[in-house]
Amino acid sequence: MSDTTFQTTERSTLRRVKELGSRDRETVHAILDEGLICHVGFAVEGQPYVIPMGYARDGERLLLHGGVASRLLQHLRSGAEICVTVTLLDGLVVARSGFSSSMNYRSVVVFGRGRAIEGEAEKARALDTLADHLMPGRSREYRAHLPKELAATEVIEIPLEEATAKARSGPPHDLEKDLELDVWAGVLPLALTPGTPEPSPDLPAGIDVPPSIRDWRRG
Amino acid sequence: MSDTTFQTTERSTLRRVKELGSRDRETVHAILDEGLICHVGFAVEGQPYVIPMGYARDGERLLLHGGVASRLLQHLRSGAEICVTVTLLDGLVVARSGFSSSMNYRSVVVFGRGRAIEGEAEKARALDTLADHLMPGRSREYRAHLPKELAATEVIEIPLEEATAKARSGPPHDLEKDLELDVWAGVLPLALTPGTPEPSPDLPAGIDVPPSIRDWRRG
Repeated sequence: MSDTTFQTTERSTLRRVKELGSRDRETVHAILDEGLICHVGFAVEGQPYVIPMGYARDGERLLLHGGVASRLLQHLRSGAEICVTVTLLDGLVVARSGFSSSMNYRSVVVFGRGRAIEGEAEKARALDTLADHLMPGRSREYRAHLPKELAATEVIEIPLEEATAKARSGPPHDLEKDLELDVWAGVLPLALTPGTPEPSPDLPAGIDVPPSIRDWRRG
Repeated sequence: MSDTTFQTTERSTLRRVKELGSRDRETVHAILDEGLICHVGFAVEGQPYVIPMGYARDGERLLLHGGVASRLLQHLRSGAEICVTVTLLDGLVVARSGFSSSMNYRSVVVFGRGRAIEGEAEKARALDTLADHLMPGRSREYRAHLPKELAATEVIEIPLEEATAKARSGPPHDLEKDLELDVWAGVLPLALTPGTPEPSPDLPAGIDVPPSIRDWRRG
């Protein structure tokens, strides 16, 4: 299953997003827009950390957020080098051999440095973008942010300047001589699917499931 | 949505897996066994990288693999410090405020150093474990590994010695005064679900979908 490994990214071979053709840039945007969580990597004294976070793309920047007291957020706002990876798993590639087995996926790796967003209005807008990324239209449904909530929240932007997209799709590539084997081969598609919305135990009667949740879908 | 951020892991506060109670250890194992991909983090000269990979848990070690020529695999086998994170997204937590909105998830962060597995028999067993992790029972269905495939594949083990699990579950925790609002709150469950298996275009007629794919489910 050598094929199952998502190949490493040679940073030196990355092209700046600004230099990407519009089609490559669209690919990066589409993957970022479909993902729900990212994995944020950073190193402290050579020790790597990988932490899952919510995120959103806002034009040519990524947004992350968390509590102001969080050491993670403090590190992100410090401007240290970070790597943000978003991976969408599309299916299992089932070959006649282990070696040719693989996964269909789309992923984006972003390199950059974080910067804190300051100002209540700016932070509120960014938090709405983060909510709407997960649940399109949700920011029009929930109540307005409170000043103390904005003060307690750190919002980080990472300019989308250096990024790469990778993907695999389609059926397995078996060895020619394996094609006659009595072994099934193909793809098992996978998708993140929503279940039935579960109202909070404290929800008063008579409040309908809103559009952001009722119409939720991805991919 | 300060709550949406998965909190950072203070490495110094992690307990060795060996010291985990059997219940904590079971939690770590269960999350690792349910995930399909991990995100592997490492740093080269201070630059962090986060790469998605297939993996498997084999007792008290994690297995990763890839092509021997891959720079990623060469780095992993060098014994450099790495961080492997597996995240399962269970649902969107829909609160009356953006601030209390969140995600339900389970995640494991493993810290350690890789070591190459040597020997054809050992590598073959590890590759079967990797395949069976993704598709339970698949190693009994595909043809045997070829010596040249084993030679072309690097398999890395990471002892499961230092790890931590985090999770959020349940409904949103709204402010008391928000409970009277005419705003829906609850959870939208999410799950990775299989679609209909798609046979390869080169699959001869009369080969049925095998148990590893027909019975595939997760979670």
